[in-house]
Amino acid sequence: MPDLSEKMQLKKNKILSSSLELFTEKGYINTSTRDIIDRTGYGASTFYRYFNSREEILDHLLSDFLGSIIQRVYDYYAEEKDLYQRFIETKRVILDVFIENPEMAEIYSRAAGTSPAIDKCLQSFDDRFLKFSSQNIHYGIEKGVFKNEPVPPIAHAILAMIKFAVYKWIVRKELSPAGMTDMVLSFHETLAVGMLKSPPSEDRD
Amino acid sequence: MPDLSEKMQLKKNKILSSSLELFTEKGYINTSTRDIIDRTGYGASTFYRYFNSREEILDHLLSDFLGSIIQRVYDYYAEEKDLYQRFIETKRVILDVFIENPEMAEIYSRAAGTSPAIDKCLQSFDDRFLKFSSQNIHYGIEKGVFKNEPVPPIAHAILAMIKFAVYKWIVRKELSPAGMTDMVLSFHETLAVGMLKSPPSEDRD
Repeated sequence: MPDLSEKMQLKKNKILSSSLELFTEKGYINTSTRDIIDRTGYGASTFYRYFNSREEILDHLLSDFLGSIIQRVYDYYAEEKDLYQRFIETKRVILDVFIENPEMAEIYSRAAGTSPAIDKCLQSFDDRFLKFSSQNIHYGIEKGVFKNEPVPPIAHAILAMIKFAVYKWIVRKELSPAGMTDMVLSFHETLAVGMLKSPPSEDRD
Repeated sequence: MPDLSEKMQLKKNKILSSSLELFTEKGYINTSTRDIIDRTGYGASTFYRYFNSREEILDHLLSDFLGSIIQRVYDYYAEEKDLYQRFIETKRVILDVFIENPEMAEIYSRAAGTSPAIDKCLQSFDDRFLKFSSQNIHYGIEKGVFKNEPVPPIAHAILAMIKFAVYKWIVRKELSPAGMTDMVLSFHETLAVGMLKSPPSEDRD
């Protein structure tokens, strides 16, 4: 909807922020479309002008969240040109976005497996993340920094590690934000050695 | 309960197998204790003689499942002594147990994040898995096969990759059993290069 008036955009944002509040308070699976409509204070017809279901809202929230992550990674790329440093430090940038958005971290970590519609939303997030991550690894291979190893398993492992670390931080409270970041970065340092054509130079540490 | 009579053991197993059926058919979160009692055909008092809640059943099922995984890994260790081969091929052994138990794979993949009690069951599975996996990596370091890299991040990445691959196979149906195994093993081959003191010899491929 590119021609949303300012007033319509405000209403849409109000629906999204009310949904995020409810998903955080009650959990996504315990929040009904009715709850969202009540929280916004609008009528049902207003809700359905923008969204068909709470799944569509989840999809929208996750898509915006991934958009922020990718934007932040590109901002970081503008400053850092070393591909080894990028491989490691990009994960700090990504985890920072999770740390700044604990509600989204919570939703992302809790929703998986609860319904086919939700899995579709998460799949779309994960697929875009995997594509983005794979492109960056391919770039490192083309530039001769990384060995020509199969990319999809590495991209999957990176996403899997981020998912698990975020889950241990936000759901299980076993890790602090700093502990989560240290764990993910340490793993990437070990993994990078298996990927690099030549070992990282000393001054990189 | 070491002194369960044979009859009691049969009843307990019937409760476990009925629960597993229901968890698979309806999902864990949609199965009530009442559903389980009805399916067994026993009275409620029989159920509560063995279990206090469906969470306790989930915990029991996951614990048995992990027991099978660890047993199979030890059986494999009895045959294979090369620590590099073990690091890679253990994951095939583990994934085979998931492939042979699709109901448990489904429960393991779908239950996370849905309630604190469930997360506690999964945490117990994951913690035991991480401990087992860490012990094996430490052994490789002691034997001088692996470099002295921080172990917890590697153990977490291994479990994270297995979790994510199983989820992509059983929930999203994006991977075949063979595709899942190939992906996990390929990642471990790349990771192992970062861990090994000397690169794997050619005849190992």
